[in-house]
Amino acid sequence: MKPENLFTGIPAELSEELLTTIHRGDGVRIERIVSQGQSSPQGFWYNQDENEWIIVLEGSAAIEFEEGTEVLELHRGSYLNIPAHVRHRVAWTDPHQKTVWLAIHYRT
Amino acid sequence: MKPENLFTGIPAELSEELLTTIHRGDGVRIERIVSQGQSSPQGFWYNQDENEWIIVLEGSAAIEFEEGTEVLELHRGSYLNIPAHVRHRVAWTDPHQKTVWLAIHYRT
Repeated sequence: MKPENLFTGIPAELSEELLTTIHRGDGVRIERIVSQGQSSPQGFWYNQDENEWIIVLEGSAAIEFEEGTEVLELHRGSYLNIPAHVRHRVAWTDPHQKTVWLAIHYRT
Repeated sequence: MKPENLFTGIPAELSEELLTTIHRGDGVRIERIVSQGQSSPQGFWYNQDENEWIIVLEGSAAIEFEEGTEVLELHRGSYLNIPAHVRHRVAWTDPHQKTVWLAIHYRT
């Protein structure tokens, strides 16, 4: 059993979001997401079959929901639970630095 | 839906480890652990019914396993999966700063 590190293995340039599944267990999938300036296309909404608990560990980003007018800004340490089928999109991610997220996907 | 922050609400002085369940879902429990200098008692081994995936987000610590001689040092970003019933203990945590862990407990 050897620890790995979440902040290693991140390419200097990211042409698109980098999604890496770092652990899979019974009913749970842990994913690292690295973004820099990417956002969801206008009018696109994620509609996921699983619940997703997310935390921003570096950088900053914002999420918005189809039902609601508020854009939620996320900074280092911000976390949020997004229940399955709650339609949402990434409004923006910081273009000047990497945003590193941890996402815990778990079944309903 | 409002984001909360993992690094807020940490008392300046910690006489013992601070364990806070920050999210509960189907088959998953997400816990924040804050330590400063605490370790498991000598000869004590955790023997948990659930799997536990852990990551250190601030500070540093070390974990050791009953089966094995190695003490695994963990720093910012270090993560590790500890399967259920793998006996382990916290060998040390940094006495000079807070160590903030995130632990994902999930069923077998």
